[in-house]
Amino acid sequence: MSLREKVIETVTRTHEAARAAATLSMSAKEDILRSVAAKLRDRRAYLQQENRKDLEGARAAGLSSAMLDRLTLSDKVIEQTAAGLEEIAAFPDPVGEVVRMWSRPNGMRVGRMRIPLGVIGIIYESRPNVTADAGALCLKAGNAVILRGGSEAINSNVAIVNLFKEALAENGTNGDVINLLPTTEREAILHMLQLEELIDLVIPRGGEELIRFVAANSRVPVIKHYKGVCHLYVDRAADLEMAVKLTVNAKAQRPGVCNALETLLVHRDVAAAFLPMAAERLTAAGVELRGCEQSRAIVASMKPATEEDWPAEYLDLILAVKVVTDMDEAIDHITRYGSLHTETIVTNDYAASQRFLKEVNSSSVIVNASTRMSDGYVYGLGAEIGISTTKIHSFGPMGVEDLTTTKFIVLGDGQIRE
Amino acid sequence: MSLREKVIETVTRTHEAARAAATLSMSAKEDILRSVAAKLRDRRAYLQQENRKDLEGARAAGLSSAMLDRLTLSDKVIEQTAAGLEEIAAFPDPVGEVVRMWSRPNGMRVGRMRIPLGVIGIIYESRPNVTADAGALCLKAGNAVILRGGSEAINSNVAIVNLFKEALAENGTNGDVINLLPTTEREAILHMLQLEELIDLVIPRGGEELIRFVAANSRVPVIKHYKGVCHLYVDRAADLEMAVKLTVNAKAQRPGVCNALETLLVHRDVAAAFLPMAAERLTAAGVELRGCEQSRAIVASMKPATEEDWPAEYLDLILAVKVVTDMDEAIDHITRYGSLHTETIVTNDYAASQRFLKEVNSSSVIVNASTRMSDGYVYGLGAEIGISTTKIHSFGPMGVEDLTTTKFIVLGDGQIRE
Repeated sequence: MSLREKVIETVTRTHEAARAAATLSMSAKEDILRSVAAKLRDRRAYLQQENRKDLEGARAAGLSSAMLDRLTLSDKVIEQTAAGLEEIAAFPDPVGEVVRMWSRPNGMRVGRMRIPLGVIGIIYESRPNVTADAGALCLKAGNAVILRGGSEAINSNVAIVNLFKEALAENGTNGDVINLLPTTEREAILHMLQLEELIDLVIPRGGEELIRFVAANSRVPVIKHYKGVCHLYVDRAADLEMAVKLTVNAKAQRPGVCNALETLLVHRDVAAAFLPMAAERLTAAGVELRGCEQSRAIVASMKPATEEDWPAEYLDLILAVKVVTDMDEAIDHITRYGSLHTETIVTNDYAASQRFLKEVNSSSVIVNASTRMSDGYVYGLGAEIGISTTKIHSFGPMGVEDLTTTKFIVLGDGQIRE
Repeated sequence: MSLREKVIETVTRTHEAARAAATLSMSAKEDILRSVAAKLRDRRAYLQQENRKDLEGARAAGLSSAMLDRLTLSDKVIEQTAAGLEEIAAFPDPVGEVVRMWSRPNGMRVGRMRIPLGVIGIIYESRPNVTADAGALCLKAGNAVILRGGSEAINSNVAIVNLFKEALAENGTNGDVINLLPTTEREAILHMLQLEELIDLVIPRGGEELIRFVAANSRVPVIKHYKGVCHLYVDRAADLEMAVKLTVNAKAQRPGVCNALETLLVHRDVAAAFLPMAAERLTAAGVELRGCEQSRAIVASMKPATEEDWPAEYLDLILAVKVVTDMDEAIDHITRYGSLHTETIVTNDYAASQRFLKEVNSSSVIVNASTRMSDGYVYGLGAEIGISTTKIHSFGPMGVEDLTTTKFIVLGDGQIRE
């Protein structure tokens, strides 16, 4: 078989298993996920033995210690992954929920019922625990899943998928509900991305380069999340103590993630009072400030910001700072330079809060809380399959429910079209 | 400017107007749509003068009389279109609806608020009234819209868009909220479909060839609807009189549309009682029957069905008929040959109805009503922008609400990530 035929063969089997996945009962899904969690713990020796093969290969290939770290299935990672699966098992099952139902003048009742998407493709990089997390989330939503992890993690990924297949077999369910692409060649991704009749949605998880590669080459719809250039706007009516606390948390609590703050916008009426306080706390937290001219007139120690700072996703302890005339200028700036990820306003002014909530159409719009709160766990969605910064299908953190769609159901008693 | 630059220039202006569209108040949108409706009536002479140019060109080009008919802005079409816009104006505004809101242990409230998608591209064929309908639906949902109609309708389309722009100007709103592609060359579509940063969603309206062309060439997400191979399954517990009535209506009331019935599946226990009744009524309605062997053993006048009949979308007075052993075989058949559009079960058995509703994941699943009921108007969604038979973003008839997405909103009082 050619590479392309191998890919088609595996994806076809996965597609054929989608109906089995969709009709699994709530309790069967819970049982299977709990069983996989138990197997992750019980079969740790097997997992770590397979993982060692990957680590040896990665060391021989000269991968960085950070990469090796992400690749390692330590006792702690295995326990966390198992606990994560148990959490997903306990989460409400979205399938079958009738989101809404209404009556029509002819006596028909019409509703929208949540159903699985069908087959979801996940393309990701080195962490093998994504295999378990993503597989479990897709399965919980009643989907079949085709996984393509980094080639450096192939032995670990095969081992984890084997545990899923064992649990599925013990439950009497078709094991093709979860599959790995049968080859680690990068070209296999290209073949997979052409199979629009067999795969309903592709979710790439990884850096911007991977996501752009997938989006550029896919006939299958793709959930995209390129970057997070998040803003915090300190309104003239802000509680300045709160504004400082939220700014420091948003920037410094974990600067390397997509919901970390990148640009601080400050209303000119409060800039003189706010910026010195904020600068002191941010500097103490190790943050480098890059300010506009007006900001630097207040805090002289800031470096000058250039046009390149406004669209920058630093993912580091660096913060761009700009003084704005009013909320219009703040919203214009966010519209121009933002990435539709997360924006916060700090204010005690009712009208200002409502206007910001209405006019800023990023995936998360927050009043008086840190941008770091925009997260599936924090929002109570349960585990997150990813985050979408494009508006089709889903926008923002995606939990199990966002791996479903709705069909129309009609309950009639003989209605015809006149 | 090159063709590509012209397209980019127009789409960029539309994109820049999206914020204006998104922030239009409910009443402004109603006023604008009612004003366009009034203008359609008041400026009929202008519309028909421009429409005559298109008709003359189409006649000179030798278009069929059916095509000329679709192209004509008769008094009746203009009145219907105006009335349609008034209906859309009166429809509930989806923007700003908080679909759900919940509290978190840290005191934050998190909700999902409906927002416009941004910029929607509509690519369609000859009917100029689509310009008004689609423009109005997109606008009602707070979107900017870029339209690309058939080149043979260009004068009519420009005239209709001009009326929108007049109404927008009178309201003080940016006229770029609605634009036509600046050129009728087919290549312009290809340039438009590359602009994923400027257009959020493309909806092609037309035949399968147009939709496949758009889907194959688009970087922008596309709502797809290739065809409707709809099934009606007569269960062993069906009310056979009702089953006959629904079958005749589904097949013969309007055979040329996508929700018309194409294949009838009959439980073997009722085939001998049902098929002769059904055949008589269907034949009287002018329907040609093509049956499996078992069907023909009961109604000898049926032509034999071949393997090609099962996936066929006849769009004509032809019906494929198959006797099945049980519901499993019916669902297997639908899964294998169906197009995910609409399927009906006729039954008085509770368990059978629930199983069919659960296991058949087409965009509309109906108990005891005609497949012809699967329609935005009939469902009460108001006017329909199209129908999706792929599961991403929207599945089934799409009304105004399906031209929106949701963002997360968070109401905090100083929450940070610990």
